[in-house]
Amino acid sequence: MKTVLVCSGGLDSVSLAHILAAEGSLTRIVSFDYGQRHRKELEFARAAACRFNVPFDLIDMRPVGAVLTGSALTDDVPVPDGHYAEETMRITVVPNRNAIMLSIAFGLAAASGCDRVAAAVHGGDHFIYPDCRPGFTEAFAAMQHAAMEGYARVELHVPFVRRTKADIVAEGARAGTPFAQTWSCYKGGEIHCGRCGTCVERREAFHLAGVPDPTPYADPDFWRLAVAGRGAQ
Amino acid sequence: MKTVLVCSGGLDSVSLAHILAAEGSLTRIVSFDYGQRHRKELEFARAAACRFNVPFDLIDMRPVGAVLTGSALTDDVPVPDGHYAEETMRITVVPNRNAIMLSIAFGLAAASGCDRVAAAVHGGDHFIYPDCRPGFTEAFAAMQHAAMEGYARVELHVPFVRRTKADIVAEGARAGTPFAQTWSCYKGGEIHCGRCGTCVERREAFHLAGVPDPTPYADPDFWRLAVAGRGAQ
Repeated sequence: MKTVLVCSGGLDSVSLAHILAAEGSLTRIVSFDYGQRHRKELEFARAAACRFNVPFDLIDMRPVGAVLTGSALTDDVPVPDGHYAEETMRITVVPNRNAIMLSIAFGLAAASGCDRVAAAVHGGDHFIYPDCRPGFTEAFAAMQHAAMEGYARVELHVPFVRRTKADIVAEGARAGTPFAQTWSCYKGGEIHCGRCGTCVERREAFHLAGVPDPTPYADPDFWRLAVAGRGAQ
Repeated sequence: MKTVLVCSGGLDSVSLAHILAAEGSLTRIVSFDYGQRHRKELEFARAAACRFNVPFDLIDMRPVGAVLTGSALTDDVPVPDGHYAEETMRITVVPNRNAIMLSIAFGLAAASGCDRVAAAVHGGDHFIYPDCRPGFTEAFAAMQHAAMEGYARVELHVPFVRRTKADIVAEGARAGTPFAQTWSCYKGGEIHCGRCGTCVERREAFHLAGVPDPTPYADPDFWRLAVAGRGAQ
């Protein structure tokens, strides 16, 4: 299948790029600049497209991001530390982000003759983002079938939606993903902070998968405290 | 209900602005500049927001429109003349346009504390746009419930989805819509061309509704030929 991959430059979507490339279905990569604080990740998406010599579309969504207020990822408020599962991480939700990005990716697929959109959404052990759940991805696929009925048939491929991030690390490692060429930290500093929700989740996933983590973290041990704290709740 | 209206500046969505305002639910208006040839319509959307003193968001989607190639509305190919029902009008489809715009409108509604998104999609007597059919709007509403479960509940309001454009003219007239302050023509010239699919449909709708059409057309009689030609097919 000819597949458009929605890729943030993070561990999950770059791993998926390598898995799709190994299957021979990676056709193009699309990324979105919506004014995120951690836009550094986008260069890792571009690097993945270069490795596989596929077209890379970086879509400037900043005018849209500007109206989607109320999120720590785009507004000038601090990103909280701690594990994703904590209530405070709710403020990292960008309203309707996945529906918006996937809709554009489906338009791009239809316009470029592709028949599949892949995304690395995953549930993991937390479910704070409703638009990462199977109920959303299934409803989205059904919506798209109706939206393009008669002129295009594009499928949604979300192989990680019922998997954990540790599963992704294990599968990504098997596909030869260069994990040092991926970015997770929401703070977007020089190196990963090690303290924000996505850093904690990343570090824990390598640990659970039994795969060496090549990432330099500013605070390499915080994740153990965060995970222990969650376990004690 | 607090309603975000997706408004192109066309007859249908400006009529809906007046209907919602009469109900007391019009809260804000959002329009999209996706590089359409007929962007003149956007000033009529802004004018409607001014009449009702509600916030107007004009979202610059040109970077997205640039990748959604293959449509006569954005690309440098001629807009065809004739009635919508004709096969040639298929090239006016912008891939996935309604799903993209509605997704952004839902994000805006959630971010601004609104609980409804209204859109003036209608089936009329032709169904060339799959994303104007009830099957699409129902699937879209279901998708959005899943996408924002637990943090927002936003409904989709599409009162015209099973109505004709003539019904919209009749209802719009009852709500006092200033039809001269709406734009339909896909060619975006000084005045309505009278020959493109949307001009023919507009002119015919006034005729069927028995409402005087205040619109100056460059070719005011072409619509009769187009409609007669369709009837003879």
